[in-house]
Amino acid sequence: MEKYAVIVAGGSGLRMGTTVPKQFLEINEKPVIWYTLNTFLESFDDLEIILVLPQHHVETGKTIIADTIDPNRIHITIGGATRFHSVKNGLELITKHSIIFVHDGVRCLLTTDLIQRCFRGAMDRGNAIPAVVPFDSLRIETFNGNEIVDRNKVRVIQTPQTFYSDIIKTAFEQDYHEAFTDEASVVEQLGIKIHLIEGEETNIKITRPLDLLIAEKVLEERALGLS
Amino acid sequence: MEKYAVIVAGGSGLRMGTTVPKQFLEINEKPVIWYTLNTFLESFDDLEIILVLPQHHVETGKTIIADTIDPNRIHITIGGATRFHSVKNGLELITKHSIIFVHDGVRCLLTTDLIQRCFRGAMDRGNAIPAVVPFDSLRIETFNGNEIVDRNKVRVIQTPQTFYSDIIKTAFEQDYHEAFTDEASVVEQLGIKIHLIEGEETNIKITRPLDLLIAEKVLEERALGLS
Repeated sequence: MEKYAVIVAGGSGLRMGTTVPKQFLEINEKPVIWYTLNTFLESFDDLEIILVLPQHHVETGKTIIADTIDPNRIHITIGGATRFHSVKNGLELITKHSIIFVHDGVRCLLTTDLIQRCFRGAMDRGNAIPAVVPFDSLRIETFNGNEIVDRNKVRVIQTPQTFYSDIIKTAFEQDYHEAFTDEASVVEQLGIKIHLIEGEETNIKITRPLDLLIAEKVLEERALGLS
Repeated sequence: MEKYAVIVAGGSGLRMGTTVPKQFLEINEKPVIWYTLNTFLESFDDLEIILVLPQHHVETGKTIIADTIDPNRIHITIGGATRFHSVKNGLELITKHSIIFVHDGVRCLLTTDLIQRCFRGAMDRGNAIPAVVPFDSLRIETFNGNEIVDRNKVRVIQTPQTFYSDIIKTAFEQDYHEAFTDEASVVEQLGIKIHLIEGEETNIKITRPLDLLIAEKVLEERALGLS
């Protein structure tokens, strides 16, 4: 089965409070997105990557790609106005029947294990969405206040959200709707059941300055074989 | 108005993978709980603390208390079989009409600002529960699968959960129920409406080894006046 990863790296860096978009910030002298790209390349020898970048960051992207373990398997496309449009642009480059991973570029701590688990899950059931149990108590707004939610019934959703190409490509032919906050929500709109699989606690988005430090520590512990 | 903080520090350290319970692990050579105690002492000059400890950690607790900025305002009581029972033991020492904060001892990064905001919130409306918006997409189990939750309607609940003494003391006269996962859920069972107020992103529970490092970094940045 062919394998493609659509990696979305379209952030503007506003939340991080820096002018460098967060996908280009450095952990141990390598950009966040460099780690993401290499982990996907390592997970399967025959996996190809479509990296979705804002137009004005294409040159930076090319430099980073040249430094990965296999630049020939990475292709660049340009992002759109929303995540939906960016993913759609990436999907348009894929014509073969395949398994497609859609991943947040700033989740640079995912492991090859997780990617392989998502692949098997999607092969078995058409889609596989990694998720973890929330740490804390949750409440949800109701019509006249709020109520506690049983956290054992809630899952925090991660990426790579992984699908058979036919399913996700069909889903992305729908018109954009603001309720499409991730790829699972787009596919679900077709009436397809979403299958959750076990994610990873360390598979965090790098969105705050503190996250860079966490990432550094996690990578350091892995290098030492501690986790 | 009198002010009491019931600080629960009953963890056994199992999740952390250490034999030292997590409330006694050290950040910059001071135990986690030391930071929590000092921040409460600093928030109001007339606030008193009831520290709820397992019987076999009372001596350790006394040593830590002696090192805080005002040991005379801290009183120890012994924890129970569950969080509910531990809090109940703490509440039994409070007889005056007051505002009562119930706090996780391992949330050592809270600020005096948050404590004061909780106080004002509880004075205004009877209770104040700090909460933050979740970072990630969430899904919830349904009878035949799962569905996306609008994360703008969800709040991640923190402590100190803060109440008028009459309300929380009455609530804790109820028989224990396993659905009582925090103090808000106990009070809500009386039919009282829960009021959420803005929490703090950094007000995390120290539950994983990585959290100690995060805590160290946050405290370091605060010392430098960066956050």
